[in-house]
Amino acid sequence: MTPSLSRRLTAEALGTLLLVATVVGSGIMAEKLAGGNVAIALLGNTLPTGAILVVLITLLGPVSGAHFNPVVTGIFAADGSLKRSDALPYMLAQIAGGIAGTLLAHAMFGLPLLGAGVATRTGMGQWIGEFTATFTLLLVIIGGLRHAPQSIPLMVGLTITAAYWFTSSTSFANPAVTIARAFTPTFAGIAPGDVMAFITAQIAGGIAGAACGRWLFGSTKQA
Amino acid sequence: MTPSLSRRLTAEALGTLLLVATVVGSGIMAEKLAGGNVAIALLGNTLPTGAILVVLITLLGPVSGAHFNPVVTGIFAADGSLKRSDALPYMLAQIAGGIAGTLLAHAMFGLPLLGAGVATRTGMGQWIGEFTATFTLLLVIIGGLRHAPQSIPLMVGLTITAAYWFTSSTSFANPAVTIARAFTPTFAGIAPGDVMAFITAQIAGGIAGAACGRWLFGSTKQA
Amino acid sequence: MTPSLSRRLTAEALGTLLLVATVVGSGIMAEKLAGGNVAIALLGNTLPTGAILVVLITLLGPVSGAHFNPVVTGIFAADGSLKRSDALPYMLAQIAGGIAGTLLAHAMFGLPLLGAGVATRTGMGQWIGEFTATFTLLLVIIGGLRHAPQSIPLMVGLTITAAYWFTSSTSFANPAVTIARAFTPTFAGIAPGDVMAFITAQIAGGIAGAACGRWLFGSTKQA
Amino acid sequence: MTPSLSRRLTAEALGTLLLVATVVGSGIMAEKLAGGNVAIALLGNTLPTGAILVVLITLLGPVSGAHFNPVVTGIFAADGSLKRSDALPYMLAQIAGGIAGTLLAHAMFGLPLLGAGVATRTGMGQWIGEFTATFTLLLVIIGGLRHAPQSIPLMVGLTITAAYWFTSSTSFANPAVTIARAFTPTFAGIAPGDVMAFITAQIAGGIAGAACGRWLFGSTKQA
Repeated sequence: MTPSLSRRLTAEALGTLLLVATVVGSGIMAEKLAGGNVAIALLGNTLPTGAILVVLITLLGPVSGAHFNPVVTGIFAADGSLKRSDALPYMLAQIAGGIAGTLLAHAMFGLPLLGAGVATRTGMGQWIGEFTATFTLLLVIIGGLRHAPQSIPLMVGLTITAAYWFTSSTSFANPAVTIARAFTPTFAGIAPGDVMAFITAQIAGGIAGAACGRWLFGSTKQA
Repeated sequence: MTPSLSRRLTAEALGTLLLVATVVGSGIMAEKLAGGNVAIALLGNTLPTGAILVVLITLLGPVSGAHFNPVVTGIFAADGSLKRSDALPYMLAQIAGGIAGTLLAHAMFGLPLLGAGVATRTGMGQWIGEFTATFTLLLVIIGGLRHAPQSIPLMVGLTITAAYWFTSSTSFANPAVTIARAFTPTFAGIAPGDVMAFITAQIAGGIAGAACGRWLFGSTKQA
Repeated sequence: MTPSLSRRLTAEALGTLLLVATVVGSGIMAEKLAGGNVAIALLGNTLPTGAILVVLITLLGPVSGAHFNPVVTGIFAADGSLKRSDALPYMLAQIAGGIAGTLLAHAMFGLPLLGAGVATRTGMGQWIGEFTATFTLLLVIIGGLRHAPQSIPLMVGLTITAAYWFTSSTSFANPAVTIARAFTPTFAGIAPGDVMAFITAQIAGGIAGAACGRWLFGSTKQA
Repeated sequence: MTPSLSRRLTAEALGTLLLVATVVGSGIMAEKLAGGNVAIALLGNTLPTGAILVVLITLLGPVSGAHFNPVVTGIFAADGSLKRSDALPYMLAQIAGGIAGTLLAHAMFGLPLLGAGVATRTGMGQWIGEFTATFTLLLVIIGGLRHAPQSIPLMVGLTITAAYWFTSSTSFANPAVTIARAFTPTFAGIAPGDVMAFITAQIAGGIAGAACGRWLFGSTKQA
């Protein structure tokens, strides 16, 4: 039996909250302790992010599907896996949860509760990075649903672990997380003016990854 | 058949001992070798802690439930999952085992067997950190028991791995471990005067996380 | 039912593309951020590579077998596990995909799309390293198919994680990846003149590892 | 059907060879690259060791039991799990394989094939460390055989990952590996004069851990 919508929206909001609190919080901690070595700071940002993704998807997948990501929600609504009227509430819960996650991270580290991102993240290279990261994420989700559903939490955690390093953008790959990261001036932040281009690249990459995955793995949906 | 109480208490004491020996011992090793880079020291403290948690919960879960944590024990006693008369012995075994773990770490590194913590860990930010870490821990345990019991060891190890970095307090999330860490002046220590506030935040976070988990995942207990 | 050849070749090309993009891309990122500490750079190159291997083999194994490696393809064609007429198309797809992966990494990081490797990687020690790494890889694949097929993705990811550090060559262990890495002047590159000796050592190690594995584990093929 | 003794001895020798090649080789690589930061070098030594243990035990467990360790072999021979006449051949295969692993690591890095350890590793603290590490290893093996046999490879890999950091000795926990490490003057080496005390502590810890495990988990052997 599908859980009630209120429980599913809580799961989406809470999951995105804890994901963003981890991304932003570990970024603050890592940069503070790394003594200026950015590679060490990124290690201290990567490990917690990959770890919490495995936990949150394992835990909340059975409740809401554990999207935490408007691109994922949009693609599942488009193909009928998610009831279309649920899509907008899911996305709003993800965005609200994500911003609350930034706020929680700031509260834990004694910073002003919300700020504005200052890190410039722009240019063709980074947009290709966001396209690639979100393409890979959707490929993993579509293929995982088809062949290895029990491996999806680990695969998503490891995909983002890799993509923090192999993409030039450090792989946001998620519009809700991108918006939330525009509200922090810390390590994981993004300048608000760079957000729309990132989200555009993510949507394009997600649609391409889902299409590629459907052809490569066969439909995951019963006709 | 449930193992005898003496075996279960041994499992709780031994598990907490090895957990604390790992936290304190790897903190000593990491700080000694890290050449003043605290992020590298925290990496060398995080990986062993996450690793040993997966091992100890897999290993001792079938014996005692592998609580190693008075908050977990208290919540299971309150909801009837653990016989109420077992709760106090469990907690005492955890606390005694934890202190023995600090002692063992000191013995291995040639330090005086017990000392007093000197690291000041206090303030609203860190208390929110402890609340958040223990909230998440209980959410994981309650949800894991409901949907993915075989994944609990990995999920707890990864949750603490993440929380070492995303909380400002580096995530103690456990009163027995907190008490044990008040007996070491090394990297993982805590000043004794800061212990009560940490434990208060942990209890509050644990109760909130368990309540949230019961609503979100449905009861894990047969009525 | 075996997927069509076009889907299998796409899986081989796409998998090798994403593998090489990760190896080269994370090498660029890690070297850029590591402040001259090569061990930190290698950590930032190792974790993504091991992680993406687990993902890609889990995901694409059910489609094409997830070879991504002409030595693996050649050995399976020789023993009849793969139809012999499929071997050359597989290898060409891997090589083309690998080069495209280098190109993608360069595009993400704003570098000229293709260059020539400058890192000298030669000498008896490194050739023994490549022999050892590819020997171990084939031993893992042959033994895994016999005793633990569901563990192959994790075992291959962990084998390469280890071999990045325990071999003097940082373990290329794959002719398609070696060729692709000859097209980048960055951290993960190899001087073109050193490629043939690496590939020779890889082929020798692969054949020896497969032979050893067949004797040790018994045949994986039904007679 | 049990594999032939020659296959089992090959598995023990080859497994110990690859284990020691990883320990010694990654130590050489990590120290060379770490720029004097010993914590980074130990990270680069820990990750490969934990990774290869998971691989080797998964792979060779079905052939020989994947002991790679005379303490484990001795305890299984004493309780009848291993035929007593197989114990000495097993141990000799482990020791020979281990020394060959040191030799292989030296060959890969262009060093004289065998040398003598120079790192002084002695004193009560380190002996308690070896006792604790081997105690924990046997506890994990005995408990794993009883309750979670499929988790043994991961548990052993994670136990050694943790013990590299939480013990003062960096956890050799294995007489065959200790002997092999006496033949290298590099990062992972041990002065030959310190070997006997390490082995004595390992045997004592192993016997204590097995005894504790049998009481705690119940016998793993059918009477």
